[in-house]
Amino acid sequence: MSEGEFDIIEGIFAAHPPRRSDVHVGAGDDCAVLAPPLGRRLAVSVDTMVEGVHFTNAMAPGRVGYRSLAASLSDLAAMGAEPAWATLALTVPRADLVWLREFHAGFDALASEHGMDLVGGDLTRGPLAVTVQVHGFVPCAGALLRSGARPGDRVVVTGTVGDAAGGLACTLDSVPASEEDRVYLLNRFERPEPRIAVGQALCGSAHAAIDISDGLLQDLGHILRLSHVGAEIDAESVPRSIPLRRLFGDEDSLRMALSGGDDYELCFTCAPRTLTELQRQFRASGVALTDIGTIVEVKGLQIMRRGAPIMAAQQGFQHF
Amino acid sequence: MSEGEFDIIEGIFAAHPPRRSDVHVGAGDDCAVLAPPLGRRLAVSVDTMVEGVHFTNAMAPGRVGYRSLAASLSDLAAMGAEPAWATLALTVPRADLVWLREFHAGFDALASEHGMDLVGGDLTRGPLAVTVQVHGFVPCAGALLRSGARPGDRVVVTGTVGDAAGGLACTLDSVPASEEDRVYLLNRFERPEPRIAVGQALCGSAHAAIDISDGLLQDLGHILRLSHVGAEIDAESVPRSIPLRRLFGDEDSLRMALSGGDDYELCFTCAPRTLTELQRQFRASGVALTDIGTIVEVKGLQIMRRGAPIMAAQQGFQHF
Repeated sequence: MSEGEFDIIEGIFAAHPPRRSDVHVGAGDDCAVLAPPLGRRLAVSVDTMVEGVHFTNAMAPGRVGYRSLAASLSDLAAMGAEPAWATLALTVPRADLVWLREFHAGFDALASEHGMDLVGGDLTRGPLAVTVQVHGFVPCAGALLRSGARPGDRVVVTGTVGDAAGGLACTLDSVPASEEDRVYLLNRFERPEPRIAVGQALCGSAHAAIDISDGLLQDLGHILRLSHVGAEIDAESVPRSIPLRRLFGDEDSLRMALSGGDDYELCFTCAPRTLTELQRQFRASGVALTDIGTIVEVKGLQIMRRGAPIMAAQQGFQHF
Repeated sequence: MSEGEFDIIEGIFAAHPPRRSDVHVGAGDDCAVLAPPLGRRLAVSVDTMVEGVHFTNAMAPGRVGYRSLAASLSDLAAMGAEPAWATLALTVPRADLVWLREFHAGFDALASEHGMDLVGGDLTRGPLAVTVQVHGFVPCAGALLRSGARPGDRVVVTGTVGDAAGGLACTLDSVPASEEDRVYLLNRFERPEPRIAVGQALCGSAHAAIDISDGLLQDLGHILRLSHVGAEIDAESVPRSIPLRRLFGDEDSLRMALSGGDDYELCFTCAPRTLTELQRQFRASGVALTDIGTIVEVKGLQIMRRGAPIMAAQQGFQHF
């Protein structure tokens, strides 16, 4: 190894000066020094992805970089926050400069799209794992919490769900798929789009929100538990993509949509009239906001299908 | 496993309500929501410790928790920052509740000592690794950077250095040590004290600072490189503890003091008169501030011993 750790970090991860004027000291000192804006609060979230648990070594390094930032950005989206700064703790088994450059390119492409700066990091040796922390700004009037759902609210999902589980299945098993369907689902798994714009629009108008990382049922369950309410969901309404239905059939695609993780869509609750306004607002951008059910006073999650209740087992991703 | 991830996290890591009034939403939502103070800037740093690289499985879980926060706090100390918030990304091979509780107790003891709150986290399955991010506040007038050293400055070290390397050696080899010396050095390795109070006193009076995590020569080298200056160090002046000298002799203890990592002391540069004032200020608290040399215009690091230059190989901790 001809380059030491510091040369690697400086050469790759601090390649350009900060994009943002609120970054007074970026990567390269003991700490970053940042100027939070007046009159807003700071939203902070951290997420780790471990090779062999959250992704396989078949995933291209650029996609590992992109996806690790996307997963954290999705938490900012679920709070209605405007993204600002990220830090990266990267553990790699060896200093593979080609891998590190591609990883950084994928990470930075998404950071740039959201006007973010990577302000600090730590590169260590060990089993491959990526920890990304993101910082964003929310209005002082209040972020979008999980705990605000009210009886009578509509339960809404952005985009389609289950695709990432379908994409993961395509990488693990030989699913008889057309190249187009396979690429579509794989992209949904490897390149999720954090719903930043929707999240910001929800802030101040929706009552509760969460991002769907562990599966719709499980994540909606957090909203219900923290809001002390229940929900009735119409399974047939849960938005599924055409490729997912085509490849996995009605039953399996529904199971994936209800319980598959890693979609990084948002699930939120709001008054019926608010939903109509939001749907009008996002029609042009192509982000579907689908009404999948109702918040009710009676606790618990009831899932109806063709007029009859079905099992509501929470089969989302369990970390242990 | 009868408890899911969320129960574990909530039961152990969000055991008490936030200590700080600037934590509006703590752990348990998509993001923490925090209120940075007016008129100050935010200092942010992240550090990862991996089992088998930064510590062995012989270290008690409480000490792993303490030390992972201490290492990050040391970066705040080196910026002159006041500690405020931390997040924790913890990757563990299994959900061992006893281990997690002890880990948290060690982490929280240090957090409590500095009035900090753990505001968010992520618990994932995988090879044992701990990533801690810390947030602190610095005056807008300027944090303590690595880049401000000036010719004529004194080069100063807090406490003693090399002890952590000695402690690590005691765990790896059968060093013929008295129980007292062994415990002293092991404590210095496992329970370093981040120099928060000294760092805050330096802010606005010292010219440059860094914490000694990778070894004195290597870390001082960063100050010299970023400040575009050189230094002449008197090796005999580098502060070594009595147990370190007693166990490892003059030559080995000097090598450890110059190149051993993990001490988390501070190395800083300041005007000679400032040093006199600082030494007076910290005499009562028992933190020695030792003058080890001079910043000079000529670049490079010259180490003198008994009047003659010695090899200045940078033998600090190389991550790769």
